[in-house]
Amino acid sequence: MQHNIALVGFGGMAGWHYDLIESIENLTVAGIWDIKEERRSYAQAKGIHVYNGLEELLADEKVDLVLVATPNDVHKSIAIQAMEAGKNVVSEKPVTLCSEDLKEMIAASERTGRFLTVHQNRRWDEDFLTVKEILKEGKLGEIFRLESRVHGSRGIPGDWRQEKEHGGGMVLDWGVHLLDQALLFYPEEKLNTVYATMTHVTNQLVDDGFTADLGFSNGVHIIIEVGTSNFVSLPRWYVLGANGTAVIEDWDRNGRIVRASGVDEGDVVPVITAAGLTKTMAPRREDSIHTEALPKVESDIRDFYRNVMAVLEGREEPKIRLEQVARVMRLMEAVFESAEKKQVIEFEK
Amino acid sequence: MQHNIALVGFGGMAGWHYDLIESIENLTVAGIWDIKEERRSYAQAKGIHVYNGLEELLADEKVDLVLVATPNDVHKSIAIQAMEAGKNVVSEKPVTLCSEDLKEMIAASERTGRFLTVHQNRRWDEDFLTVKEILKEGKLGEIFRLESRVHGSRGIPGDWRQEKEHGGGMVLDWGVHLLDQALLFYPEEKLNTVYATMTHVTNQLVDDGFTADLGFSNGVHIIIEVGTSNFVSLPRWYVLGANGTAVIEDWDRNGRIVRASGVDEGDVVPVITAAGLTKTMAPRREDSIHTEALPKVESDIRDFYRNVMAVLEGREEPKIRLEQVARVMRLMEAVFESAEKKQVIEFEK
Repeated sequence: MQHNIALVGFGGMAGWHYDLIESIENLTVAGIWDIKEERRSYAQAKGIHVYNGLEELLADEKVDLVLVATPNDVHKSIAIQAMEAGKNVVSEKPVTLCSEDLKEMIAASERTGRFLTVHQNRRWDEDFLTVKEILKEGKLGEIFRLESRVHGSRGIPGDWRQEKEHGGGMVLDWGVHLLDQALLFYPEEKLNTVYATMTHVTNQLVDDGFTADLGFSNGVHIIIEVGTSNFVSLPRWYVLGANGTAVIEDWDRNGRIVRASGVDEGDVVPVITAAGLTKTMAPRREDSIHTEALPKVESDIRDFYRNVMAVLEGREEPKIRLEQVARVMRLMEAVFESAEKKQVIEFEK
Repeated sequence: MQHNIALVGFGGMAGWHYDLIESIENLTVAGIWDIKEERRSYAQAKGIHVYNGLEELLADEKVDLVLVATPNDVHKSIAIQAMEAGKNVVSEKPVTLCSEDLKEMIAASERTGRFLTVHQNRRWDEDFLTVKEILKEGKLGEIFRLESRVHGSRGIPGDWRQEKEHGGGMVLDWGVHLLDQALLFYPEEKLNTVYATMTHVTNQLVDDGFTADLGFSNGVHIIIEVGTSNFVSLPRWYVLGANGTAVIEDWDRNGRIVRASGVDEGDVVPVITAAGLTKTMAPRREDSIHTEALPKVESDIRDFYRNVMAVLEGREEPKIRLEQVARVMRLMEAVFESAEKKQVIEFEK
């Protein structure tokens, strides 16, 4: 079945969507609308149909799906307007700025019977899926800590992402991905506690980085860290199990798994430092550990839109469910609250 | 002036002290006492005088200094007994197990007029001193976060260090060093908040690792992390300033400083991942950063004992002051309390 999608907002991310959609069978871009003249001209130059306004776009009967890829603060009103015009909606992330607003959007979806979902594309990132695979394989033994970091060094982008009223800041921009991923490792567990800190290194108006320590009911802690003044990056992922550690250094998935081999080391040779010695922190003897490659995983981000179409055709359940999106939104609010109050937030009992 | 030191407890750490003392002018080991026959025989075989008991050791008039290098739970009673016998005392770390006990020890020092200090030897570790030098140089711009990690992978030592009643566990063993170092970066600032978590991966009786987020009144966060089930180590130090980052990888001080060069990058080329793209987290263009070597520092741990002798001779102030030791002890208690209650502890207002 053929689906026609219209794009509202045609900035950098919508351009990425456009290229993606062009490569997907049964899905066609019907046209775009952007409030900026320069982006409309850019689309026209690419041979893309440009509507005369949002109303015209929403009135196009062949369009059954609308992508909302505007600044974050207007996702809500456009999404609701689109659903009321009978369109199904994919919203860019974060779906909106607070849980109250999200409730209005979900109510509109229920009222109109239109499908609403969110482009949590980083569920398809292969570094994340590699960690999922490592957990599934179980080679590290019982997992007790996962650390997920994204580090850059040029501050936050100089557009609306610097402005609080447009939903700027790194919690909403990158946190929404990393927190969503974190909640997918142990979906059956309660997230009991949230402790977060925030940075304002390059920007006072919004957070330009944050850390969050998520304490789950199974005892696992997941650490989330986003930094934009980090000139050397720590590994993208660091996964600790009782019997081994996995490291994924970067987006290219350089990394390794190191596990205890079961060979007894006998007497440990201490490490001598300038002012002391330590056996506890001395490196392992080579034969007492195994080093192995990360598991190979592959993903296809086109599956996001394929799933959206299958949902519209009644063939599949949505991969990005609104209750998951709502939980991530509540979690982002808990991150802000924890950092502001300098307290641990009890998230779920 | 010649000083004679007697060692109480002759385990691994006392052996290290023995070798150190042998290399220091004007300081001589008068003898040792250990409750274990095997350690006494070992000392005798090395040609070291072995007393017939603690009483005989403390009665030796030529001894003016006693090193207490026993399990942690008996530091207090031996130190007090030694001071009451007229001896000055160097205690291994942690000085004792709680603030109340430390108060008794300080009271004994005041009552007897004897000098009491603690072997916080890792103040002389060159990795720590390198970070101090980086902060002094100021090249990173305003510092907003320091991370100090010590990672091993063989759990905790299988001796008394596994037992709560003897003062085992990683907070008391390694935390006492890293927390002491952390408090030396900004000695004039209040430590407002402490958030900590603890692990029990290899051991239920005591903590086999912990993390602590220390929030100072100048806005800087110092992160302390000790892990003993970490088969890949994260860097020993990670220092974040507004204009650059310093990394010290290991005890050998491999590492580097990376700073903004001031060259504008112009248009940033985004990084493409499996499921998205990012400009914010794309690596810097090479000419927009400078990479440089860590500053060189040197230290001599013999300065610890040289300072102790100079204090006894009235020539210097102690380098390890009891109020610093008491602050670290309170901080360790706050770490335990935070981890147990799963709350942020308000440490100093």
